[in-house]
Amino acid sequence: MIFEVSINTTGKNCYRDITGNIESVVYNSNILDGICLVFVPHTTAAVTINEGYDEAVIEDLLNYLNILIPKNPKDIVFKHMEGNSDAHIKASLIGNNVCIPVSNGKLVLGKWQKVIFLEFDGPRTRRIIIKVVGK
Amino acid sequence: MIFEVSINTTGKNCYRDITGNIESVVYNSNILDGICLVFVPHTTAAVTINEGYDEAVIEDLLNYLNILIPKNPKDIVFKHMEGNSDAHIKASLIGNNVCIPVSNGKLVLGKWQKVIFLEFDGPRTRRIIIKVVGK
Amino acid sequence: MIFEVSINTTGKNCYRDITGNIESVVYNSNILDGICLVFVPHTTAAVTINEGYDEAVIEDLLNYLNILIPKNPKDIVFKHMEGNSDAHIKASLIGNNVCIPVSNGKLVLGKWQKVIFLEFDGPRTRRIIIKVVGK
Repeated sequence: MIFEVSINTTGKNCYRDITGNIESVVYNSNILDGICLVFVPHTTAAVTINEGYDEAVIEDLLNYLNILIPKNPKDIVFKHMEGNSDAHIKASLIGNNVCIPVSNGKLVLGKWQKVIFLEFDGPRTRRIIIKVVGK
Repeated sequence: MIFEVSINTTGKNCYRDITGNIESVVYNSNILDGICLVFVPHTTAAVTINEGYDEAVIEDLLNYLNILIPKNPKDIVFKHMEGNSDAHIKASLIGNNVCIPVSNGKLVLGKWQKVIFLEFDGPRTRRIIIKVVGK
Repeated sequence: MIFEVSINTTGKNCYRDITGNIESVVYNSNILDGICLVFVPHTTAAVTINEGYDEAVIEDLLNYLNILIPKNPKDIVFKHMEGNSDAHIKASLIGNNVCIPVSNGKLVLGKWQKVIFLEFDGPRTRRIIIKVVGK
């Protein structure tokens, strides 16, 4: 069984803490012990696991990604005509999938870790696909 | 059961859409519901999921990676004597493995997503290992 | 069943080859065929798979990450007050989890591949969580 969550993003570059959504899915999967795959089916967004308590951490990440991969870099003219190559590049650098251990029916995350959806070409309606395997 | 695909790459930096190869493996695995792991057993190549319809997207990614991580950067002299530290660094930034949900015996990918093998130190013959778990 | 390994890191930026630790866990899991998830429950460290034979490869990676993401970049003042935003950004760029195929009770790794823990904000005591799924 595949689960899906839908969210609305609010800016060109922004983020959403989706830990609660993923935890609900794991609960509903009835799997007590295994692996949870969080998969973003888009090409200009990503998912990461990082600190979710001080909002400045993810803001620093998003702002620094804008410096590393500007929309219009000075050394290259992007060929992709839609004007969002920066977002595609960020998506591949961060990655569109993470796997999280599941134990006793719960995500095994570190004390400060949250599952964070990263939007690089919003605002849009985005889907997140979740698959839990195990017993 | 482990599956393996072999491809030949054609340049120092280039890519190959391997979605069809992975789909065939999932079909042959007889697993209808689970997770497909795509694993690159090399240290100067990677695998990513991104847009595969407009070729310019992956070309922009490869070209921009050359700017972010040049073969001979001005601020550092690489210690690794084989002259391909740029390729090793790109490999760790993109990652050598992706997990994809499997449902009804098929990969669950977004509308624009393709599974893309990225070569950073070709041309070479490369292997891709695929493992599907589930039922 | 969830396995855990603990290591001590020795510098602000450093690494540890943890392949042997992961291999022991796979052996003890009694799973012969499946997927091994290596998950770092921290937000300023990461895990990657890369060449582990010539130490220069990972040293080049760590040194180049310091150039790409300096502790105090010239173009931005980080908002996160703990002074380790560079480490959080590196963690999301490399990623905190990898999946490795398991066959005949062993990790399936390429000839030159090792599983490498990357520390970006040490020295610290760090945990690594390992979950093996399969049969």
